Amino acid sequence: MQKIESHACFGGRQEVWQHLSGVLGCEMRFGVYLPPQVALGPCPVLYWLSGLTCSEQNFITKAGAQRYAAEHGLILVAPDTSPRGEDVVDADGYDLGKGAGFYVNATEAPWSRHYRMHDYVVEELPALVDAHFPTTTARGISGHSMGGHGALVVALRNPGRYRSVSAFSPIVAPTRVPWGQKAFGAYLGLDTETWREWDACELVAGAKARLPLLVDQGEADEFLDRELQPSRLQAACEAAGHPLELRLQPGYDHSYYFIASFIGDHIAHHARALKE
Amino acid sequence: MQKIESHACFGGRQEVWQHLSGVLGCEMRFGVYLPPQVALGPCPVLYWLSGLTCSEQNFITKAGAQRYAAEHGLILVAPDTSPRGEDVVDADGYDLGKGAGFYVNATEAPWSRHYRMHDYVVEELPALVDAHFPTTTARGISGHSMGGHGALVVALRNPGRYRSVSAFSPIVAPTRVPWGQKAFGAYLGLDTETWREWDACELVAGAKARLPLLVDQGEADEFLDRELQPSRLQAACEAAGHPLELRLQPGYDHSYYFIASFIGDHIAHHARALKE
Repeated sequence: MQKIESHACFGGRQEVWQHLSGVLGCEMRFGVYLPPQVALGPCPVLYWLSGLTCSEQNFITKAGAQRYAAEHGLILVAPDTSPRGEDVVDADGYDLGKGAGFYVNATEAPWSRHYRMHDYVVEELPALVDAHFPTTTARGISGHSMGGHGALVVALRNPGRYRSVSAFSPIVAPTRVPWGQKAFGAYLGLDTETWREWDACELVAGAKARLPLLVDQGEADEFLDRELQPSRLQAACEAAGHPLELRLQPGYDHSYYFIASFIGDHIAHHARALKE
Repeated sequence: MQKIESHACFGGRQEVWQHLSGVLGCEMRFGVYLPPQVALGPCPVLYWLSGLTCSEQNFITKAGAQRYAAEHGLILVAPDTSPRGEDVVDADGYDLGKGAGFYVNATEAPWSRHYRMHDYVVEELPALVDAHFPTTTARGISGHSMGGHGALVVALRNPGRYRSVSAFSPIVAPTRVPWGQKAFGAYLGLDTETWREWDACELVAGAKARLPLLVDQGEADEFLDRELQPSRLQAACEAAGHPLELRLQPGYDHSYYFIASFIGDHIAHHARALKE
């Protein structure tokens, strides 16, 4: 592990680290915010999964989350959104390949060699983080858009592993919308039955655990009707009796200005669960 | 004036506007944050001057200032750092030409045609802002690095025009350091006597008004000794009896992580003066 950046920030440190990922078969970077409370002892970790086109930089430079993490004593970990490097296969367009890993384990060539973001985010990265930073075992997960999908799916697929989950503008039903159908067709193949285990609405229907979902969605989001469709999650949660707090925010769009405006609420939500 | 961007943000709106500047002879963009309080009546304006290489985007996406502006009811205006466009002369290097206007009025060819950032920031832009947005007459000014120099110089040169001033990591003595000497040599020519009216330390010595200066400086700033040298400002203020609060912040560097950590203090400082 190599430290790439280190900046004092709200009494703690915002760092960027690089390491060789065995799961992904390439060098990866992630951001980690260490709040001032790490001087006193281990802190819980909130993982953040970013959206299409993002790297590890977007959340750490634009969300303003460090202020709230410093208030509550949470470590923030923000990975990249796909495998990277010259020998990693890519595609034309922003919504497939690099920057668009969709937090699945690809089964189809040529993607299956590197695109295993689920296992990276759930297994390899937390093991690395726990080995190098003063963490407790309490983990939460959140994310935006493709990363909101990632957070919901990761939490629902791995009951007991996360104590809290939330999402901004998530793709709640990737099997039903163009972004998800394009990515799943490439990464998972044409048998759409296999897609269902990567779709938050499908997972809610079969969930045994009842981890409450907090979702913020801007009503002026330019992708609302075509790609996001939060009413599908609302219907799935109602049908399954799964707890959901869906907050529709009038006037807000898909940008980091939206995330910045409500990330404080989300970090408070995670802190309540992680510090119990 | 053309609106380029508009995003809901902390109950207000973050916008970007483009207009033809007569002073600079080119199209210019600026960011404006309108807090929720503009719905109730006019609000004071805090101008923010950015540093080398920045556009109107850096401050509005990275500083996290909107949260505090929304709390205090301040409008934030963030201009670009130089004239722009294909027919504006540029130079090799990040510290001269585009992105490096230094908030002076250039007197030397070929710079004097477009590089008049002082008059743009002090005269043209506020007139435009006051004509288009619900402003009071109360103005403050702040900035970072080259823009910290700009904020101090603009406030000291124009007594009575700003009610409050602050700076992060300012170039306090541009006539004495490499960045300033390179820029002033190009923009103002070889007669160094003319440089003095654009140097905060020189201006403090001759200042008739006593506007208090708030300055934050990171002690781990990579440019501290070579380009910033805040002790020169401290000495000049002590000699002149000019009020200065210089805060040296241990561990902080020159980045926006530093600005984000203390912008709340600065906005509170300005709000106290602007809402009197």
